[in-house]
Amino acid sequence: MGPFTPVGRLRPAARPETAMIVAERIPEVRRQVDEARQREETVRLVPTMGALHAGHRSLIQTARRDGGFVVVSLFVNPTQFGPGEDLARYPRPIEDDLAACEDEGVDLVFHPPTEEMYPDEPKTTVHVADLTGGLCGAQRPGHFDGVCTVVTKLLGIVRPDAAYFGEKDAQQLAVVRRMVADLNLPVRIRACPLVRDADTLATSSRNRYLSDQERSRALALPKAVLEAGGRIRAGERDAAAVERRVRKALEAADGVELEYVAVVDPDTLAPLETIGQQVLVAAAVRVGQTRLIDNCLLRNLDDRGEA
Amino acid sequence: MGPFTPVGRLRPAARPETAMIVAERIPEVRRQVDEARQREETVRLVPTMGALHAGHRSLIQTARRDGGFVVVSLFVNPTQFGPGEDLARYPRPIEDDLAACEDEGVDLVFHPPTEEMYPDEPKTTVHVADLTGGLCGAQRPGHFDGVCTVVTKLLGIVRPDAAYFGEKDAQQLAVVRRMVADLNLPVRIRACPLVRDADTLATSSRNRYLSDQERSRALALPKAVLEAGGRIRAGERDAAAVERRVRKALEAADGVELEYVAVVDPDTLAPLETIGQQVLVAAAVRVGQTRLIDNCLLRNLDDRGEA
Repeated sequence: MGPFTPVGRLRPAARPETAMIVAERIPEVRRQVDEARQREETVRLVPTMGALHAGHRSLIQTARRDGGFVVVSLFVNPTQFGPGEDLARYPRPIEDDLAACEDEGVDLVFHPPTEEMYPDEPKTTVHVADLTGGLCGAQRPGHFDGVCTVVTKLLGIVRPDAAYFGEKDAQQLAVVRRMVADLNLPVRIRACPLVRDADTLATSSRNRYLSDQERSRALALPKAVLEAGGRIRAGERDAAAVERRVRKALEAADGVELEYVAVVDPDTLAPLETIGQQVLVAAAVRVGQTRLIDNCLLRNLDDRGEA
Repeated sequence: MGPFTPVGRLRPAARPETAMIVAERIPEVRRQVDEARQREETVRLVPTMGALHAGHRSLIQTARRDGGFVVVSLFVNPTQFGPGEDLARYPRPIEDDLAACEDEGVDLVFHPPTEEMYPDEPKTTVHVADLTGGLCGAQRPGHFDGVCTVVTKLLGIVRPDAAYFGEKDAQQLAVVRRMVADLNLPVRIRACPLVRDADTLATSSRNRYLSDQERSRALALPKAVLEAGGRIRAGERDAAAVERRVRKALEAADGVELEYVAVVDPDTLAPLETIGQQVLVAAAVRVGQTRLIDNCLLRNLDDRGEA
């Protein structure tokens, strides 16, 4: 297991900088967070499903830079997977994930077994209307209910001052922000930019499903959304024209099956006619058995291009 | 307004025992609660819709006795009223409520205008399945979604260590407990016994709707559920027999329209065949335009009667 502090070990009041705590149980997390708070540390949560990549690392690095007690949760949440989806084969490289967390100076990893999160058949659901109907929500019914519910649970367990989400999952970010606002949850949501690999593919835990050929085919996705971003920055304001070009490019791409293209407001996810100060161009495709999403998020646009 | 501290007044670090704060805005509540926490006070929340009666007072007294910083919210939550219900005419005797809170030694009253709780059209709903389908839930579709959502909001705003609910609203209590467990909300739920007026009618804000004649007719309700409790304590274990007797008594009562009788487990609200260690006998009736509920809750029963 490496040099991780086992669950339940008694710790001195002044926590040494180096020892990462790995907790599988909720009471242990709560105790550790309480102790951090008693040391007047700010508590930060990076919720993940593990299989950590450079995108996750950038979230953790941002949290680490913001300072305080950094918690990373590693939990493949079954309730956000649909019946035909990849729950069973979703990667769970726990040793690598723990090493990555330690490498990034994480203070506590919460890695609960499923029965710790769902001891009984869960009866409670947190649902965000409207924002969850389109984009990925249309393809993945119930997905965002699962996300909202598990995020609410993780916020209740860790009670962080701030929680970190990637802009790669742009719809998830908008939904979580709306949920936190609507429910007055006492947490700041911090968004971190999408991270791309050298070949421009957005980092994703699901990229490891791709064969070499599939990966090279998948590059049509970042190409299309980045091109859309370029045109918008250059002054394009007709949302339908942007959408059409991305759709055309992805429909023409070899071995790529288009799921959706959306040109929407990044906060409300409402479709745009004319692009104003901010826009999210989001798309989802299938390459072989693998579902991939990507997007270009632009804010603070002026009348003709970037501010 | 009387001797209440106005919103936003600067307060010394050591809070004088006597000054009750009245806050209409969420940031003010959060600031006051943060200060209480810095004084290492336990924070307690009694959520109410105002029109405080002896039942509410007993909740507040219990919270006060438990010690710490006692918050009472007074908010007539529109989202838990159905289209044909009494939202518009629900009593809002704010002066009396503030006087009652001050009388009970409340530290902070949160009395938000509706737009403070719902600044935008709310899109987020907290739903508890199964437990909300029967009893009052069957008569009031959407009611418990409204309750769960506003309770989650109040818990997010006040972040209490403990929240106080009355056993009068037995289904609400079971639903809130399940929600808190399912969502890992960091709060202890404390239940307080139903309080009856001298004539045995359960205290309720809606009792003030009753004419003298209606009130005397309404007494069939406590009579029926208390009788059921007596029979169970005396050894009756056949749930259907208990249900039948209550139903018969209420169907025979003058000017009383029966809505439901339920003999269920008080935690799961699942119907019972044989009464075991615990039982909730709950009923709802209409007397004139007024809907009234009452119940008898028994726990720790032995094989033949009370433990």
